[in-house]
Amino acid sequence: MADSGTRDQTAAQSRRRGAVLEQAIYQATLRELATLGYNGLTMEGVARRAQTGKAALYRRWPSKKDLVLDALLHALPEAREIAASDSARDNLIAALTIMSDALAGEMAAPGLGVMLEMLREPELRQAFGSRIIEPRLRLVEAILHRAAARGELRADAELPLIARTGPALVMQTFLLTGTPPAAAELSRIVDAVLMPLLTEPGRSEDGSQD
Amino acid sequence: MADSGTRDQTAAQSRRRGAVLEQAIYQATLRELATLGYNGLTMEGVARRAQTGKAALYRRWPSKKDLVLDALLHALPEAREIAASDSARDNLIAALTIMSDALAGEMAAPGLGVMLEMLREPELRQAFGSRIIEPRLRLVEAILHRAAARGELRADAELPLIARTGPALVMQTFLLTGTPPAAAELSRIVDAVLMPLLTEPGRSEDGSQD
Repeated sequence: MADSGTRDQTAAQSRRRGAVLEQAIYQATLRELATLGYNGLTMEGVARRAQTGKAALYRRWPSKKDLVLDALLHALPEAREIAASDSARDNLIAALTIMSDALAGEMAAPGLGVMLEMLREPELRQAFGSRIIEPRLRLVEAILHRAAARGELRADAELPLIARTGPALVMQTFLLTGTPPAAAELSRIVDAVLMPLLTEPGRSEDGSQD
Repeated sequence: MADSGTRDQTAAQSRRRGAVLEQAIYQATLRELATLGYNGLTMEGVARRAQTGKAALYRRWPSKKDLVLDALLHALPEAREIAASDSARDNLIAALTIMSDALAGEMAAPGLGVMLEMLREPELRQAFGSRIIEPRLRLVEAILHRAAARGELRADAELPLIARTGPALVMQTFLLTGTPPAAAELSRIVDAVLMPLLTEPGRSEDGSQD
């Protein structure tokens, strides 16, 4: 009875294909990362946890680094258009909320595992930066550029640096407290730091101050 | 000859006392941290590297956490008055420069080792925050309060949050690139982010705008 159950399960596992297998591998990768960290994770350990073979992993990912980055990207919301609103303030709060939610959610423990070790591994840090961080910072920059184009924001603001400031404060709270900022704190970051950097006090709708 | 040299050295080691022994223990702790990380570090390993006994460590530090924090504090510039100048801008650049130098210097590898693991260890994170981070953030806040009292800065700025913003950007650069910001980048942070948040454009020396 138990044997037959095990056989059925094994047969089912071996029939997994495509997206289903990929999903299982990503889940296994995130769990291995959370438990063992990046250095402790091995392709073999992931394969075992996902109940597949190492060959199935290497067919898709040439290295552990590629697998880990894909698993993290899979766990994150896509870096696509955030802006649903015409208000830079609302869009900035939306972008920082997505970041906070990601740090609090499924990403939290594995994301830490990678962040921890990426500091020591230049190649991993670079891949993490270019594939995960930069596309998301560019979204924030895009929010600011659009608002500037509408005349909502001052034109001389250092947009790339200001775009980094919100995420830097979110990460700082996470590092110091172990949890990302709650909604009230995110609003405070946007209202007390980002918006004052972007808007000229007293600037009128028609831009007459220029 | 070799034997006699070793004996002399051992005798010298055993005679080390007070500050000299403490210094050797701190150096050993920082090296163990850099090599093994916080989790890998043991009181025994530190004692061996410092060529002393575990008892000498436990006489001074009740736990590994206390030893590590004291060693990190020892490697850092003291959190005392930074402000040599009457200019908030100069003082902010000085404070961020100290932080960058610490991240680039002797602290770099061991500091990473602790930062890495403190994220998983709430007790360590709390001690790191209260003993290392907060006293330094309070120095930055003090710079801002003094400038506000002189009328140099706007009175309604959210000083504690703005005080955190510079260090958050320094740490972000460090996490993403592996090196802290250079001098030009520190000036940009102060000039494009901190100072605009602190000064009211058009505010006159006599405060007549209020």
